[in-house]
Amino acid sequence: MSNPESRNADAIVVKSHSGGIVTLTLNRADKFNALSEEMIAALQAELDTLAQDPSARVVVLAAAGKAFCAGHDLKQMRAQPGIDYYQTLFKQCSKLMLTIQKLPQPVIARVQGMATAAGCQLVAMCDLAVAADSASFAVSGINVGLFCATPAVPLSRNVTRKQALEMLLTGDFIDARTALARGLVNRVVPIDQLDAEVGKLCASIAAKPAVAVAMGKHLFYQQSEMGIEAAYQLAGQTMACNMMDEAALEGVQAFIEKRTPRWKV
Amino acid sequence: MSNPESRNADAIVVKSHSGGIVTLTLNRADKFNALSEEMIAALQAELDTLAQDPSARVVVLAAAGKAFCAGHDLKQMRAQPGIDYYQTLFKQCSKLMLTIQKLPQPVIARVQGMATAAGCQLVAMCDLAVAADSASFAVSGINVGLFCATPAVPLSRNVTRKQALEMLLTGDFIDARTALARGLVNRVVPIDQLDAEVGKLCASIAAKPAVAVAMGKHLFYQQSEMGIEAAYQLAGQTMACNMMDEAALEGVQAFIEKRTPRWKV
Amino acid sequence: MSNPESRNADAIVVKSHSGGIVTLTLNRADKFNALSEEMIAALQAELDTLAQDPSARVVVLAAAGKAFCAGHDLKQMRAQPGIDYYQTLFKQCSKLMLTIQKLPQPVIARVQGMATAAGCQLVAMCDLAVAADSASFAVSGINVGLFCATPAVPLSRNVTRKQALEMLLTGDFIDARTALARGLVNRVVPIDQLDAEVGKLCASIAAKPAVAVAMGKHLFYQQSEMGIEAAYQLAGQTMACNMMDEAALEGVQAFIEKRTPRWKV
Repeated sequence: MSNPESRNADAIVVKSHSGGIVTLTLNRADKFNALSEEMIAALQAELDTLAQDPSARVVVLAAAGKAFCAGHDLKQMRAQPGIDYYQTLFKQCSKLMLTIQKLPQPVIARVQGMATAAGCQLVAMCDLAVAADSASFAVSGINVGLFCATPAVPLSRNVTRKQALEMLLTGDFIDARTALARGLVNRVVPIDQLDAEVGKLCASIAAKPAVAVAMGKHLFYQQSEMGIEAAYQLAGQTMACNMMDEAALEGVQAFIEKRTPRWKV
Repeated sequence: MSNPESRNADAIVVKSHSGGIVTLTLNRADKFNALSEEMIAALQAELDTLAQDPSARVVVLAAAGKAFCAGHDLKQMRAQPGIDYYQTLFKQCSKLMLTIQKLPQPVIARVQGMATAAGCQLVAMCDLAVAADSASFAVSGINVGLFCATPAVPLSRNVTRKQALEMLLTGDFIDARTALARGLVNRVVPIDQLDAEVGKLCASIAAKPAVAVAMGKHLFYQQSEMGIEAAYQLAGQTMACNMMDEAALEGVQAFIEKRTPRWKV
Repeated sequence: MSNPESRNADAIVVKSHSGGIVTLTLNRADKFNALSEEMIAALQAELDTLAQDPSARVVVLAAAGKAFCAGHDLKQMRAQPGIDYYQTLFKQCSKLMLTIQKLPQPVIARVQGMATAAGCQLVAMCDLAVAADSASFAVSGINVGLFCATPAVPLSRNVTRKQALEMLLTGDFIDARTALARGLVNRVVPIDQLDAEVGKLCASIAAKPAVAVAMGKHLFYQQSEMGIEAAYQLAGQTMACNMMDEAALEGVQAFIEKRTPRWKV
């Protein structure tokens, strides 16, 4: 069931669904899609719905207008200068970010413009990211005296230590090619090929059995926080379970018979 | 003592030893050197023997034929559709992979062709890897509905998070140059220079004192799973012990006297 | 209060302070600035002083002469062949390295020449690094039979696993461009532009509020050793505290009013 608000073209997050591919579009172009309380709540609601929706196979996180996302809504934050408010806000924002990682479906960021502060964090948290060559990335909170602490969490898990610290301490932008070389995004294309490139990735993933994708994504992040021996133990169990799944048995059989698997995708 | 089977040119793993450099060659070209139960057992036996062999200074993991290694033997797996069988299989395969890491000698993958699924995992687990420019790499299990969970363990410890996830979720190949840029392999050369390049690396390592190499390799992986303070404590102890070793005392003395160390290598 | 010795141009570490930017220069060019007991003690004293000096906003670690730092003083080490001595030496050196990471101010390595063994470790431990294009890097202890165990700790937290192991096992040099591509340094420029480039980085960081920089640097390293959920919890708390700071409140207000923040930097 989709959030009723999202059926509306004026919704703060617009949802569209086509052939298993769900696109969530941040839709406050005039506010550079800032992560206001309302934007965080709307995205959280959409993701919670998708987590229960087996018809959704891949999620694209897109944005309307020139900017992808400019981070927190500083005006809204400044109007509430209390520690309790800020703690709650960052807690809700962090919950949203972790929801992306916990979602059974892969989430692909479609980055058409600037991604700054918590906007850059969104890109870093997505499983995959495709950027227009004109896109740019910064964790620029330090420019207003607010170190991008929560964005540092996924950024430092995407790029190397010194690369992350330079961005965090200077607030400087990097361009899309640099983001690609460092591992913050997977692919960079001219803006007019952005949808096609995102579409190719989506189609590739949507063609795979959902159970294997969900088990795999979950395992990937779990094992990344473990020592290598424990990681192997968990991965071995996961793979044995995966192999017992109907789709894997049919997939392997099809491979042996040199034919296409007959999957109910 | 070497495995008697390995003296045979038809052995599933062929072992050769020359000047401290031991080459183990996966020798089932017609089966793309798949990691069948027999292949896993033969490799495990060879590595267990090498772990006790002080005459072996460097190990090269090579492969016969067009492919380096195509991963598990899917036909053999499909014939045994039981969870116990799969658990045991992945346990044995994971043990083999960890044996490479625990081996006192550095292990260098010589990648002359495609390395897919557990074949790509083998490359990722080796301490170093040299690839022909025509080699390619994929963790393609997802194409048959079986997410490469165990290969994800070392792959995610070689390349960045999004780069690893893209390979795991799409099953797509990357070429040797891409593998080099990302850190999955150390060097890429034309195929006719592959043996020379592997030889140079081997000669460099074989010229160093065995004790320092073994202590260093062991320390490297141990400290990588620790917090930085504990890592420094262990590394400091290791280095103090290493410094008390005869070879280090002679090496440092030779450095001071501007002469070549007189080591019994 | 600065170390009196450092006022002397012959001091083993020369300190200069200009506009919040403190430069510590290793000043034993004839000994390639080796980390002798005296050099370690002098650097430790300077850093301990700086940790308490709010007028210092950024620290540059520089070196006199052709080499940046050649690592430990092997002659001094060889003259003291006892395990207790070595344990104490590596303990003191590791303490120095961790002091760089714990310092409230960012530390930038200015690498004008060769950085080998513990000299390469110094570069890896600094928060940021700018190198001349003629600089080069090696962890070459293995060449004298002494595996660079303590340098491996920060090196393996800067570059990928196989890249680090290749350097550690072969002792080979990498050039500045390679160090940049791998993440060991942030920027590479011709030697005659080295001071200008370091100066730009320093000016950028010195223009930011000290509290945000210090909180951010501390958080960055803490969270990097945590699982992602704990990391987010800590980062969220840090960011809420940071937001309550006068400088952040003024910075955000200035952003809303589209003016420059009025900070007492």
